[in-house]
Amino acid sequence: MTNQTYPKNAWYVAAMSEEIGLEKPLGRTICGERIAFYRPSENDIAAVLDFCPHRGAALSLGYVEDGLLVCGYHGLKIGEDGKTKEMPLQRVQGFPCMKSYAVEERYGFIWVWTGDQSKADEALIPHLEWAVSDDWAYGGGLYHIKCDYRLMIDNLMDLTHETYVHASSIGQKEIDESPVSTQVLGGEVITSRYMENIMAPPFWQAALKANGLADDVPVDRWQRCRFTPPSNVMIDVGVAHAGKGGFDAPKEFKASSIVVDFITPENDDTMWYFWGMARNFKPNDDALTDNIRDGQGGIFQEDLEVLECQQINLKSFPEYDLLKLNIDAGGVQSRRIIERIIQEEQKSSKQESTANNSATTSGKNEEIPLQTVSF
Amino acid sequence: MTNQTYPKNAWYVAAMSEEIGLEKPLGRTICGERIAFYRPSENDIAAVLDFCPHRGAALSLGYVEDGLLVCGYHGLKIGEDGKTKEMPLQRVQGFPCMKSYAVEERYGFIWVWTGDQSKADEALIPHLEWAVSDDWAYGGGLYHIKCDYRLMIDNLMDLTHETYVHASSIGQKEIDESPVSTQVLGGEVITSRYMENIMAPPFWQAALKANGLADDVPVDRWQRCRFTPPSNVMIDVGVAHAGKGGFDAPKEFKASSIVVDFITPENDDTMWYFWGMARNFKPNDDALTDNIRDGQGGIFQEDLEVLECQQINLKSFPEYDLLKLNIDAGGVQSRRIIERIIQEEQKSSKQESTANNSATTSGKNEEIPLQTVSF
Amino acid sequence: MTNQTYPKNAWYVAAMSEEIGLEKPLGRTICGERIAFYRPSENDIAAVLDFCPHRGAALSLGYVEDGLLVCGYHGLKIGEDGKTKEMPLQRVQGFPCMKSYAVEERYGFIWVWTGDQSKADEALIPHLEWAVSDDWAYGGGLYHIKCDYRLMIDNLMDLTHETYVHASSIGQKEIDESPVSTQVLGGEVITSRYMENIMAPPFWQAALKANGLADDVPVDRWQRCRFTPPSNVMIDVGVAHAGKGGFDAPKEFKASSIVVDFITPENDDTMWYFWGMARNFKPNDDALTDNIRDGQGGIFQEDLEVLECQQINLKSFPEYDLLKLNIDAGGVQSRRIIERIIQEEQKSSKQESTANNSATTSGKNEEIPLQTVSF
Repeated sequence: MTNQTYPKNAWYVAAMSEEIGLEKPLGRTICGERIAFYRPSENDIAAVLDFCPHRGAALSLGYVEDGLLVCGYHGLKIGEDGKTKEMPLQRVQGFPCMKSYAVEERYGFIWVWTGDQSKADEALIPHLEWAVSDDWAYGGGLYHIKCDYRLMIDNLMDLTHETYVHASSIGQKEIDESPVSTQVLGGEVITSRYMENIMAPPFWQAALKANGLADDVPVDRWQRCRFTPPSNVMIDVGVAHAGKGGFDAPKEFKASSIVVDFITPENDDTMWYFWGMARNFKPNDDALTDNIRDGQGGIFQEDLEVLECQQINLKSFPEYDLLKLNIDAGGVQSRRIIERIIQEEQKSSKQESTANNSATTSGKNEEIPLQTVSF
Repeated sequence: MTNQTYPKNAWYVAAMSEEIGLEKPLGRTICGERIAFYRPSENDIAAVLDFCPHRGAALSLGYVEDGLLVCGYHGLKIGEDGKTKEMPLQRVQGFPCMKSYAVEERYGFIWVWTGDQSKADEALIPHLEWAVSDDWAYGGGLYHIKCDYRLMIDNLMDLTHETYVHASSIGQKEIDESPVSTQVLGGEVITSRYMENIMAPPFWQAALKANGLADDVPVDRWQRCRFTPPSNVMIDVGVAHAGKGGFDAPKEFKASSIVVDFITPENDDTMWYFWGMARNFKPNDDALTDNIRDGQGGIFQEDLEVLECQQINLKSFPEYDLLKLNIDAGGVQSRRIIERIIQEEQKSSKQESTANNSATTSGKNEEIPLQTVSF
Repeated sequence: MTNQTYPKNAWYVAAMSEEIGLEKPLGRTICGERIAFYRPSENDIAAVLDFCPHRGAALSLGYVEDGLLVCGYHGLKIGEDGKTKEMPLQRVQGFPCMKSYAVEERYGFIWVWTGDQSKADEALIPHLEWAVSDDWAYGGGLYHIKCDYRLMIDNLMDLTHETYVHASSIGQKEIDESPVSTQVLGGEVITSRYMENIMAPPFWQAALKANGLADDVPVDRWQRCRFTPPSNVMIDVGVAHAGKGGFDAPKEFKASSIVVDFITPENDDTMWYFWGMARNFKPNDDALTDNIRDGQGGIFQEDLEVLECQQINLKSFPEYDLLKLNIDAGGVQSRRIIERIIQEEQKSSKQESTANNSATTSGKNEEIPLQTVSF
């Protein structure tokens, strides 16, 4: 408990919608929970512990039939509530109920609540305007990274690294020469950087051009990184022709978008990185969407080696106190919020530990009654 | 000792005969013992600890000369009794005697006794009629699987899984709709299932055809899984034209064979799986043998992912008590027999621990005298 | 401390000069120290802990600018003294000074001192005549091997193994039929073997031919293995026409060279093996150099599997006392010298432990002051 590195009572993005087909379940570990995701019907989604109550086979290797997940080993059929519904020649009423997870499909993603299921409230899934409005287009992808998910939060809450890691695309010298300011607003953290009267780097020149704007004139550039718990970072980025108001400039003078980052712990030292870009220009241009996704995918891949080596280094020097500079304020403040949420979660969990656990879930640390059959 | 997962005082299949050439020793770990197998002469087999008494090199990397295993590092020559016979310029009388293993070649397999060598009795190697009779043909192969060997016993003692894991070949719905019965006879376990008046699945249709029988008529099908210690499972399988007596039908109405499974622990969490099929029709048709082996190899490979994921799951949830249903009786009873053998082995080992160890073997936990040479 | 397997107060070969380009730092672990090597200028070399004081990124992933190593994550610039010199928008005076390492480039190699930096004295780097004289040519390479570096010392201080491991090139039966003699001279160990009136093996036949000498006449052959601490083995090898004086024969009757072996621990169980051959004939024949390097590279690769399997075996049988035969005297005596150096190092380290650590280095087990910035 004391070393918990992520909140569990939270909605995490677990998959992109297209990863889970009608007949193809997905096994994925989220926040240390081994979960089988499947579709009981075409537009429905369910999530249960990826562990067959019969012999422990991975349910995600099975298939879906009549809305039930069929174990691919001996044919046990489990429902989205974790209850065994059928098994050939067996009476299944006494079978233990397995842990199931609150899960929602929204905005093209599968969201899962990994902690106390009684607290899962789908109203807590963030509203993402860019995902529902016709004025926006979105493209993105997924990377598996062998590092603590908080290193990715640090990474994204301090875009100074663009100058170095992404020198050939979105990086430029003016980034690290411009001061950042960090604000904590309620449970959110915003780190902003404004660069005025500079030349746009290659990525933004292309965006201006795609937007029908001159790309060879000075621009004002902005980066507003917004952390929201548990671990999402949305970044307003863009350029406007210089002197037209920057971030607040009228649409006809700017190219802008939102860098979308859903950062999901797999275990303590590994993570799933759902990255993408939402743009509010040319939303119906699918070729442009593909183009941006390819470019962004390449750029974001440059972070992987840096983060994985950093993880190895930090494990090798556990006693080293990292510096906390002004540019690190975004990550530091985000981690404080995370730490506070974890502490509250643990306190509340202790208070409830005298109460009974929910009768409908059974998980790793709970007693599962033995089904005895006398031979 | 308390966590021992397999009997050691037993004959295990360690290799197929063709794996060990006249000049090519084989290094393989069986029941946690690192063993070098080699052929002192063409039809002979020997097994010694895969550890050169000189500097610890792997003897299996060496070669055979004059019936001795020559260490490929500095030329020490060891005999099948574990004694060093020669070494250039050295007097070897005082060299420690290394552990050697009782080993037999029989039925096309190499059998090794990994435990107390004084108890090794080749009469305990099971008689396999199909391996010595001209009426039978055999083909098989070897898989290395990252799971506790007992998961494979469970797998084979409950063929319900054929319906799911092997749906496209030998599986059929009628399997899991037919009850099984399990008997414990002395030290053996037999689980049987009979299906009457059904259509044969693809594999058996082909077998009927190969046997010159109609393959489009109803059949009676049987599966009789027989576990014998330490971990062999022989399965009588077949189909007969319906109403002709099933398992007991005359030869001209049926196609049948024995699924041969030698299940050998490598370590606690990994195993060697020697699989094959013996058939008593068209025994001289080598093309048919190859054909069946290829088909069976493909079918049995479908079990690997299931078993390896199950192993990971069970390691993740060590406290979970698996269900023990009627269909699991075969595996459960087999494990009870194994557990009893292990307990007897440990009890007998304790009683003997005051007596001296055999002077001709030296192993992992024994004192090996230091050969000191003054410099 | 008690299990230290290598001296740290010593010069080790860390790299070949050509591995470190002007803009391409090299990250490599030497004696358990993660080190970033880089060139502040064309003919200069520097070595610092491969850990950015800012956020722990691997400095070796960065680049060099104005003689400083620039972190590829957020642009911190570190000097060869381990002090941060610059960082965009930051005052860096208070940044902790990181560990830096004494490092020298000599003879085409990068030498690093991994222990107490106050004791580093470049006069202690061995003089290598073959590396500075125009009469000699050198060619070599690098292998990474998963074994304790001392197994390689054993290997090279007993060339009996040539008969077995390198049977097709430099091995011959006469090697293991000829006795060796081992002397300890001060801090060095020399193991010699002389073989008289034998036929040269393939490698030496080719060398005689390359030297313009008859290769089909009897020769006297010698091997003189010289260990010098911490872990270098130089081997005088050669053949002379029989009866001309052997090792001391005039130049026109012999072909000889020095097998060069720099053996550098990476961690306790892995090592870097810098191997090569220096010859004093046809020193300007680059094609011959390449030819010999290719041949030697192939021969030395034959040792890898033997050593890695030996390492696994010794880890599996930690209590086994290896034999110490006369042929092993070279390795045994070399290990005694190493052991004595380690003990002296630990004694001297304890005596100094009341004194302050050097203010200019900070490493794994030292307190690094936290740079606090108030947010």
